[in-house]
Amino acid sequence: MLKIIALDAMGGDYGARVVVPAAARALKTYPELKVLLVGQIDKLNPLAAKHLSAYRDRFEIISATEIVEMAEAPAHALRSKKDSSMRVALNCVKDARAQACVSAGNTGALMATARFVLKMLPGVDRPAICTTFPAERGGEVRFLDLGANVDSSPENLFQFAVMGSVLSQALDRVENPRIALLNIGSEEIKGNEVVKRASDIFSDSQVINYIGYVEGDGIFKNIADVIVCDGFIGNITLKTIEGSVKFVGRLMKDIVAKRWWNKILILPALPLLKKLVDYINPERHNGASLLGLNGIVIKSHGGASVNAFYHAIGEAVREVEANVPRLIGEKVAVLLKAGPQ
Amino acid sequence: MLKIIALDAMGGDYGARVVVPAAARALKTYPELKVLLVGQIDKLNPLAAKHLSAYRDRFEIISATEIVEMAEAPAHALRSKKDSSMRVALNCVKDARAQACVSAGNTGALMATARFVLKMLPGVDRPAICTTFPAERGGEVRFLDLGANVDSSPENLFQFAVMGSVLSQALDRVENPRIALLNIGSEEIKGNEVVKRASDIFSDSQVINYIGYVEGDGIFKNIADVIVCDGFIGNITLKTIEGSVKFVGRLMKDIVAKRWWNKILILPALPLLKKLVDYINPERHNGASLLGLNGIVIKSHGGASVNAFYHAIGEAVREVEANVPRLIGEKVAVLLKAGPQ
Repeated sequence: MLKIIALDAMGGDYGARVVVPAAARALKTYPELKVLLVGQIDKLNPLAAKHLSAYRDRFEIISATEIVEMAEAPAHALRSKKDSSMRVALNCVKDARAQACVSAGNTGALMATARFVLKMLPGVDRPAICTTFPAERGGEVRFLDLGANVDSSPENLFQFAVMGSVLSQALDRVENPRIALLNIGSEEIKGNEVVKRASDIFSDSQVINYIGYVEGDGIFKNIADVIVCDGFIGNITLKTIEGSVKFVGRLMKDIVAKRWWNKILILPALPLLKKLVDYINPERHNGASLLGLNGIVIKSHGGASVNAFYHAIGEAVREVEANVPRLIGEKVAVLLKAGPQ
Repeated sequence: MLKIIALDAMGGDYGARVVVPAAARALKTYPELKVLLVGQIDKLNPLAAKHLSAYRDRFEIISATEIVEMAEAPAHALRSKKDSSMRVALNCVKDARAQACVSAGNTGALMATARFVLKMLPGVDRPAICTTFPAERGGEVRFLDLGANVDSSPENLFQFAVMGSVLSQALDRVENPRIALLNIGSEEIKGNEVVKRASDIFSDSQVINYIGYVEGDGIFKNIADVIVCDGFIGNITLKTIEGSVKFVGRLMKDIVAKRWWNKILILPALPLLKKLVDYINPERHNGASLLGLNGIVIKSHGGASVNAFYHAIGEAVREVEANVPRLIGEKVAVLLKAGPQ
């Protein structure tokens, strides 16, 4: 089955310089893929000539004259950049010219524009951003929300859980995904009011396999397949993980750089360190899903490399194959039919 | 100046087996230290005979027949364990028999009991738990609240900032500590309502050197000396950092264990890895301060080793030397005099 994916070719810190070579790599990996490169034609033409000459019938360049800046206010982008590469790429999904959109652009603008252009699935109140983390024993955990929402209600968190569960089932082939709520310790002051009330709703539901609370140090322990939290917490957690891992790497580099013979001492261990880095490499996990929309939208890290953006396209391919929005829509429809949980 | 510190000798996962040898080590390091070992006499006597025979006039054993369990509800401990080692150790501070108390016991119970026994400093509404993290370029950052409170108000966060600032000045010798609020990205949805309102209060105050928001990946970058957040976020962040660092270590071990020759490849790098581990070693940073109380209370990690508990005693010694509660009290009094900020 042919998969057509629209790429916001001007988004992110590096724009077309990253997106076009990443597209070439994805076209090589996925023989049934076709990409729409959306952006400024004069910039895209030479890059396409350079990288995509082997795939003449599997890409199209679609004109969009404007660019949403990384620091631009989402409302401003939404109101006044109607011919932005982001907006036009999303329009391709709305008009069924593409089955998914991938963008490394401004998260807030992407979220606001996607919501406006594609609309929410019936029964879903708010979109959520979902990523995956590696876990012990080769596991993977889906983690949401990463910052689409702050001050989420218990009901919002329940919808996130349902969407995360669908994703884990459809993409990670987990039969009955273990759903956990991110919370604090085992003391009496056990979480804030929202999390406590969410836990009651999760427990009462037959639709998800709720296993209870997980703490920050449980994220990597492969005890849950999906971890749900408010976007404020989720974004801080995501950034804290990135910061912790980078800090350890940075310290190691500093220690090695301190004396010249340290470089020799570390030499034999380098292949092992490379294995470690490959495993936790955030590039491999690049491509967060914007869930709850009437269409597939994948957000790449703004500073993504060619390899990282390639992985984001891969995530889009898998969501197209699984038809994620339809699956979420069906699950939510069942819930709506059953009445309030 | 003689410093007398009361140790909850039965608290934590290992109780007296860890506390007594840690006390011996602290007595060796700090010649002006005296410790009160609070707990069950029949358990403490043999351990003291074994470890403390060199310091006969520098320790006392104080009887307390009960033990607060690690999973016990704080309210239950407070109501019905009036002769617990934790409670009696805190009473020593209240009665001025000791200048500080160190406990590895149940955090919730310690917080509730300390608040009840010692009372809050005038003008401080809620206590906060504060720890330190290592940062780049040899820096240290004070981080609070770690879970004493959930659903903190902007005014609570401001009090945390003032207390953290005092601690950084008094113990880390930072002249004008840079205070930051933990928040999410630079998009329009910039944090939740509480953080936004707190930022306004922080900006208006002349008492603290507020530098703005910091994200999760900025914790280790040595851009702030004190980072303030709600206890729910703080506890999740703390645990996430612990989990991330452990996960990286665990992966490395797994990779090394996979083939016997990997053990040989890693061998020359072991001294470098040891340096890394020493630097980020949470044991070195064990000993979180319960701030805002009318007395010094240090919470050790429940699973602390002898070395880690020794570091917690060291933190208590430094706070006694600096007279932290008096400094906080003075700063808060200035604020109260100046009227609402």
